Amino acid sequence: MPESVSVKNIGLRGVAVADTKISFIDGQRGILIYRGYRIEELAERSTFMETAFLLLHGRLPTTDELADFDGQVRAERGLPKYVYEALRHFPRTADPMDVLQASVPMLAMSDPDLSNSGRDANVRMAIRLISRMATVTAAWDRIRNGNDPIPPDGGLSHAANFLWMLTGQQPNEEIAHDLDVCLILHADHTFNASTFACREVTSTRAHMYAAVTAGIGALSGSLHGGANTRVMGMLLALESEPDVERWVKNRMDRGDRIMGMGHAVYKTMDPRAKYLKEMATRLGRITGGEKWDKLSKTLEQVAVEEFDRRGKTEIRPNVDFYSAPVYYMMGIPRDLFTPIFAMSRIAGWCSHVIEEKFAEAQEKPMLYRPQAEYVGQYCGLIGCEYAEVQTRSKAAV
Amino acid sequence: MPESVSVKNIGLRGVAVADTKISFIDGQRGILIYRGYRIEELAERSTFMETAFLLLHGRLPTTDELADFDGQVRAERGLPKYVYEALRHFPRTADPMDVLQASVPMLAMSDPDLSNSGRDANVRMAIRLISRMATVTAAWDRIRNGNDPIPPDGGLSHAANFLWMLTGQQPNEEIAHDLDVCLILHADHTFNASTFACREVTSTRAHMYAAVTAGIGALSGSLHGGANTRVMGMLLALESEPDVERWVKNRMDRGDRIMGMGHAVYKTMDPRAKYLKEMATRLGRITGGEKWDKLSKTLEQVAVEEFDRRGKTEIRPNVDFYSAPVYYMMGIPRDLFTPIFAMSRIAGWCSHVIEEKFAEAQEKPMLYRPQAEYVGQYCGLIGCEYAEVQTRSKAAV
Repeated sequence: MPESVSVKNIGLRGVAVADTKISFIDGQRGILIYRGYRIEELAERSTFMETAFLLLHGRLPTTDELADFDGQVRAERGLPKYVYEALRHFPRTADPMDVLQASVPMLAMSDPDLSNSGRDANVRMAIRLISRMATVTAAWDRIRNGNDPIPPDGGLSHAANFLWMLTGQQPNEEIAHDLDVCLILHADHTFNASTFACREVTSTRAHMYAAVTAGIGALSGSLHGGANTRVMGMLLALESEPDVERWVKNRMDRGDRIMGMGHAVYKTMDPRAKYLKEMATRLGRITGGEKWDKLSKTLEQVAVEEFDRRGKTEIRPNVDFYSAPVYYMMGIPRDLFTPIFAMSRIAGWCSHVIEEKFAEAQEKPMLYRPQAEYVGQYCGLIGCEYAEVQTRSKAAV
Repeated sequence: MPESVSVKNIGLRGVAVADTKISFIDGQRGILIYRGYRIEELAERSTFMETAFLLLHGRLPTTDELADFDGQVRAERGLPKYVYEALRHFPRTADPMDVLQASVPMLAMSDPDLSNSGRDANVRMAIRLISRMATVTAAWDRIRNGNDPIPPDGGLSHAANFLWMLTGQQPNEEIAHDLDVCLILHADHTFNASTFACREVTSTRAHMYAAVTAGIGALSGSLHGGANTRVMGMLLALESEPDVERWVKNRMDRGDRIMGMGHAVYKTMDPRAKYLKEMATRLGRITGGEKWDKLSKTLEQVAVEEFDRRGKTEIRPNVDFYSAPVYYMMGIPRDLFTPIFAMSRIAGWCSHVIEEKFAEAQEKPMLYRPQAEYVGQYCGLIGCEYAEVQTRSKAAV
């Protein structure tokens, strides 16, 4: 390792900062792997509960282990009373991501394992967090609409119970299954911005809740998880647009993004998007929302052609492009799309927190503390003198 | 810039990730500069309000500008009613850092500038945050002790008003002044872990509150802001220790840290510690707490000699080593030491959020999205096939 490295203003793109055993992306070939398993295989054969176990423990569970894990998650669905009380006092216009970010530190306050720094205690905290992200999201949607939160139904799967808590209606089985698959697909993605925020906070030896709260903040950004809400905004704007081609060209000419297109790592179609695209077609049929499916596909085709014409052949749909119409057709309010991303990614965040906390000695991560190059002024009485050594010091720092 | 760089498991130490005009550290010489001014000069001649303006705006204010800024901060001290309500419902055992982390997203919910992405709007949000970190911290200490929060006193300075809201007594002027100096000394420190967390979250285009909430999480860790609380725990344990020298040797033999000693960047005494050391002596006299001052100095001397003997000549007191006895002598509860750090660092965090959001085009930061090297397994049905290309893909990622 050289004494000092400069990778300025590239957002650490292409800079390997740690080892991980959790997930792997081949951005050229469009491959995503969790703990050795390809995402397509997990989407086809696994459940979100099994995938969460896999991410946390590094291996698939036995039948008994899975039943036990699922039971633990179900048992933790209720929120402490003071969290409901706080939510009831929040302004009803509060953004659900702000509510989620406020709620996670609140959940920390009564977690019996908070001051226990062992691995098992962290797994128990992860189970509570995986369980309760869904409850907070649903409870907030009820409360802001003037309704009482609906208590969780221990007989329903994680995804089905979320839809139940949101609507108070027994969910369509196919839709609940599709939502479960969405949770699998979003559960981890190596060192994305929110996961890196979780790991960075963990590196200070902060507790899991403090780290996850940082992850929620990063996910809320429009260049990260916040994008799916914006994709839907774009589709709604396009609903009454007679000429999609012209709309796309104008947008690109202005230098505006096509939301949900392009990715920091994938240089071909995101494997999750491929999967969600098929789901959108199926959901269009079930829900009568074909127009959203068609509109997304038209937009994809027109935008890809236009990107190709402009030599940007690497810009393809990412996970947000098709998750937006999928959630919309499921009847989920648009500003809950990003909280649903969080409900899924929490499995990855907690796994990364545990990996960061319990890495083996030879690969023990250190506190993340990068450098910056000072390009500001030197002034003041004593500072003027300092200006003389500016060049030397800048090199040293 | 090379295609791909590996800086694994070193916590980005020595890796320059961005430009900054906010602050500068010369770790070899023990120099810290905010916006061109040496920290000693600011501690002697400035106030926390002036320093906060300097950090936010990049220059010292005129007399009128300072009065205006100070007036704005004073005007924003009250919290929205729903925040007090939420605090009243929290478990009284809640850690003040968890309370602070929960409160910042709550404050976002009613900020009129939240959806305004302009620079002025961000400065106004910064002013509210700088003002209210103090109010939340004091209010929580009142509420957890079964007392009503004390309304802010618009006639008092930021530091004096904090002590007033905490105790309900007119603060000693010298102590209020010393606390103000502490706030100056902790206000910024380049790309430390919490500031980097703020910038990383900001790089996703999340709002200022979401970013600051991440910073609070990072600051809570015992390797970062949480250290000052632990230094005090160490001093309290040492109070009844007859042989400090033996205690220090035993601790080092076991491989345990001396809390408050050593720093990721400083290779000599932290200039802030030097300043706080003198303050501790003075406060010992004013408050009758001489024994804490003496104990800290004995511990410093013994530990430094022992580190020197072991060839660790770079391990010297950092900012936490003397801020702990200083706050303790001021009568501040031990678990508020880190929230007070946050009350100060908020000025730096907000300045870095603004720099990250509004950097000039040629140095426009990108979304922080590093890489990790996958060192896990390849398995599963499709995964097995993937194992063949493992070597090539690892290099590509």
